[in-house]
Amino acid sequence: MLHGYFRSAASWRVRIALNLKGIRVAGVSHHLRRGEQHLPAFLRLNPQGFVPALELDDGTVLTQSLAIMAWLDEVHPLPALLPFDPVLRAKVRAFALVLAADTHPLQNLAVLAKLRALGLDEPSVQAWAADVNARGLAACEQLAGKGSFAFGDAPGLADICLIPQLGNARRFGVDVARFPRLLAIEAQCQTLAAFRDAAPASQPDAE
Amino acid sequence: MLHGYFRSAASWRVRIALNLKGIRVAGVSHHLRRGEQHLPAFLRLNPQGFVPALELDDGTVLTQSLAIMAWLDEVHPLPALLPFDPVLRAKVRAFALVLAADTHPLQNLAVLAKLRALGLDEPSVQAWAADVNARGLAACEQLAGKGSFAFGDAPGLADICLIPQLGNARRFGVDVARFPRLLAIEAQCQTLAAFRDAAPASQPDAE
Repeated sequence: MLHGYFRSAASWRVRIALNLKGIRVAGVSHHLRRGEQHLPAFLRLNPQGFVPALELDDGTVLTQSLAIMAWLDEVHPLPALLPFDPVLRAKVRAFALVLAADTHPLQNLAVLAKLRALGLDEPSVQAWAADVNARGLAACEQLAGKGSFAFGDAPGLADICLIPQLGNARRFGVDVARFPRLLAIEAQCQTLAAFRDAAPASQPDAE
Repeated sequence: MLHGYFRSAASWRVRIALNLKGIRVAGVSHHLRRGEQHLPAFLRLNPQGFVPALELDDGTVLTQSLAIMAWLDEVHPLPALLPFDPVLRAKVRAFALVLAADTHPLQNLAVLAKLRALGLDEPSVQAWAADVNARGLAACEQLAGKGSFAFGDAPGLADICLIPQLGNARRFGVDVARFPRLLAIEAQCQTLAAFRDAAPASQPDAE
């Protein structure tokens, strides 16, 4: 059972990964804007109070999207989310971490709420989020490898992290036309149902 | 060749991992407070402008501490940085990501500089960094597994991410006595030269 939220970029990543693996998992929505991730019942699943959380049949709960996807790739190896060569794997992981560690956590709901609480006006908060997204994507534009996807001709972890972040960047008004290589990767991903079906607008809890 | 900075938590992680593996690598210091990571020569190594970057003998450059350590664990498997069981591996990775993705990037030099540029006074900036550290460590206090280290009786990725973050938390004035389990893990880590020798104060570029 995947505990998530339609618009959460981290939940979106795990949805893409599950789709690529051909694994169907029931979804449970926790409304982040209403703060449902802070309810005691959810904190028992994940003390960090973040989605996604993947609850296995035996009650084990896995958290953190990158950890969930690494587990998924270990227990359901095909199709692989990482290439075989260790250096290339490191490059794919680095690309993913630029977005999942250095970009997305700096512009999530909690951080933006904190900036507002510190007295920043709404244009400044939006500019913060746009700047964070633009910097992360600019690095990825340089770090992307060769092929029709981010690294090679099959989709994987880098693509999975890229697509939701491009979605966030657009929401915050970033001019993504500055990143032609990333947009070409995105266009390639959109040819696959695994990516299309994972989009926020296609989720039952979409608003 | 490891491009780093004595006080960078992400460089510190990689130093611990290399020490645990028994691998000696020459270090090159880039003075973050003087902005040396933004110089063109460094940006050619890492377009993101972040340390650490591990430059291999053939000129390949690996970036992002978690990606560097995953590569290291793949090419030098012993002693392993992750346990064997896939679920336990996922729990170790999640613990590491709470710190490396959701904590450290929110309190690095660039973010704190940005908060100052937005007009926040120094006490507010320090309070931001303290709060970020306290939240991450509070989650990890709950997420830690059993054993003398964070997960089991051998040091690994979770311990590697924990020790530098506890260092940061203290620098920002967090009362770490609230995290007895984490402090016990830290005490265990400090019995090992691999951890002691990686500390900022033991580096040639320490100030």
